Order: sequence, then structure tokens, then C-alpha cells
Amino acid sequence: MSIRSVIDATTEAVGADPANAQATVQAQGHLVGPTEVALRSGRHSITVDEPAALGGEDAGASPVNYALVSLASCQAITYRFWAEQLGIALDDVEVKVEADLDLRGFFGLDDDVRAGFGEVRVQVTPKGPESPERYEELARTVDEHCPVLDLFANATPVSTTVAVPAPAA
Amino acid sequence: MSIRSVIDATTEAVGADPANAQATVQAQGHLVGPTEVALRSGRHSITVDEPAALGGEDAGASPVNYALVSLASCQAITYRFWAEQLGIALDDVEVKVEADLDLRGFFGLDDDVRAGFGEVRVQVTPKGPESPERYEELARTVDEHCPVLDLFANATPVSTTVAVPAPAA
Repeated sequence: MSIRSVIDATTEAVGADPANAQATVQAQGHLVGPTEVALRSGRHSITVDEPAALGGEDAGASPVNYALVSLASCQAITYRFWAEQLGIALDDVEVKVEADLDLRGFFGLDDDVRAGFGEVRVQVTPKGPESPERYEELARTVDEHCPVLDLFANATPVSTTVAVPAPAA
Repeated sequence: MSIRSVIDATTEAVGADPANAQATVQAQGHLVGPTEVALRSGRHSITVDEPAALGGEDAGASPVNYALVSLASCQAITYRFWAEQLGIALDDVEVKVEADLDLRGFFGLDDDVRAGFGEVRVQVTPKGPESPERYEELARTVDEHCPVLDLFANATPVSTTVAVPAPAA
């Protein structure tokens, strides 16, 4: 199905019933090595690990690397959709994401340092025949509608449930 | 290097100079299909795509799926490190993450709907011989130090730079 068809079909389905816009996304996994995690999401199996300096074997990218992969790819795909929506020709888009991480947060070495990224920088290079103004318009619109950019830039309610093992009989 | 050695070496290096705690994480990629994105992060190549219902070929998990993979794996690895740090035996930990996504945000069908996740639910099952109380202590400590949980739960400064193509001569 073309991007145009997806936009049209979704707009029609959601217009008929907003409940059609509700999706649930899932992922699950468990430790299979010192820091290696085997996960599944949809029909995909994904390996996450840490580099040797953090006790792993680099069997896959690390969690914070995957967070940036998620953001970079979400930007790229949102460019594709909104280029179609706005009628802007787009041949390709390159996205580079870089983030600062102060490991004192993760290791608990300074309570004033947050565990997560300090700052995230996104560099986007759209490619195609349109004017700079049109790509700037596209960029503004993408940043208002990119799900993972919203996840990064704003707080999201997260609830955690821990099922502790039953005490030994 | 064992997790214990990593913790000890990092604590010593950061004690000598806090600059040793500063890391930069990167990822980059570009569109290679309607919604397929080819990325690199560290030495890893990663394919992201959308399912057919969103115009893709499901060649890889989607950006929002990878966001949850990032969170689930970060929880698992943070359990490993803090179990070591707190002297709590941990045989394994299972993590399931589920998130609500209202696609009206992405498609721009309702300006009052955010583009990102509405709510994220994390279910963790630590496994091992310790008392429930110790695993509850571990869970609390993990949630204070998990980088990707912090990324989800709190706002992070994100700056975007767009390099628009030069006007045709």
C-alpha cells in the first residue's frame, strides 16, 4: 500500500471511528548473558548488549544506542509521510542523532546527575528538488508529529509493576 | 570484564576525574524504501521499517517498537548492575513493556492528541533466591538509575538542525 493510500485509508477509518486510531505497541525480553538481552517485538527478534567497557560482549547495540536508532528512524519515516501529506518531493533524508550521557547517573555516583541523556542533537538533511523553504516547512511539520521526538522531548506517564518471586516454602 | 570489575573500575576512574563519566552516543541512517530505514550505531547495522498497514514491508521492527526494546533492555541491564551493586542474587529478569499510541497524533488528525505514547506500562519479573523485599529494594533502585526509563518519564532537551538543499543554480 502506498504512503498516499495509507494516509487516505487511515484518515477515513479514524473519521468513521476515532477508536481506529488506538494502537498498542509491545516488546519483551530477558537477560541471556551478563548484559545481553534477547527481546521480541512484533515478529522481530532483537539482541541488545553492552560493549566490553560496560561488561558486555557487544552482541548488539546497547539500550541507549537503540533509543537513538528509534529517534533517527522515526524522524526519517515521519519525513516520508509528511512530505506526501504536504505534496513535497523527497528523494531521501539523512538523519544523524547524537546524545550526551553522563554515566554518573547510571552508576549512582552523583545524585544530582540524571540517569538519562543530558542533551540530544538531531541533524537532518532532506534531499530532493524542492526549495529550501519547502523543506523547512516540512521539517517544522515533522517535528510536530514525530512520535519518538515527542517521547524524547516531553514527559510520558510510565507505570512499573514488579512481580517479585514468592518466598521459598 | 565482570560487572563487579566494571563498577569498581568506573567508580575509580570517575573519582579521579568526573570527565571520565562523559559519553557520547550516536546513530545515523537514511531512507532506503517507502518506510525502510538503514541505520548504523556503533559497529551495528540496524534495519527499521513499518508494517504493511503503515506502508512498509516489515523488514525490521518500527521506531516505536525499538523505543520499547530500548526501555525493556535498559531495565534488564540496570537490574543486572544494581543487583551486583546491592549484593542481591539475580538469576534472570523478564521485562514486558506495553505502550498506548493514538495514531491521530502522527497523522495530524487531532491537534489535541500528542504524537508520542499516551501511557507506558512496564512489567518486571526478577528471578532468584532472595526475599521479595530485596527484589522490591532492587526495583526501586533500578528505577532511579535506568537511563531509558529517565528518557521516557522525563523531558530531555532536543535540538534539531535541518540542512536544506541549496537552491538549484
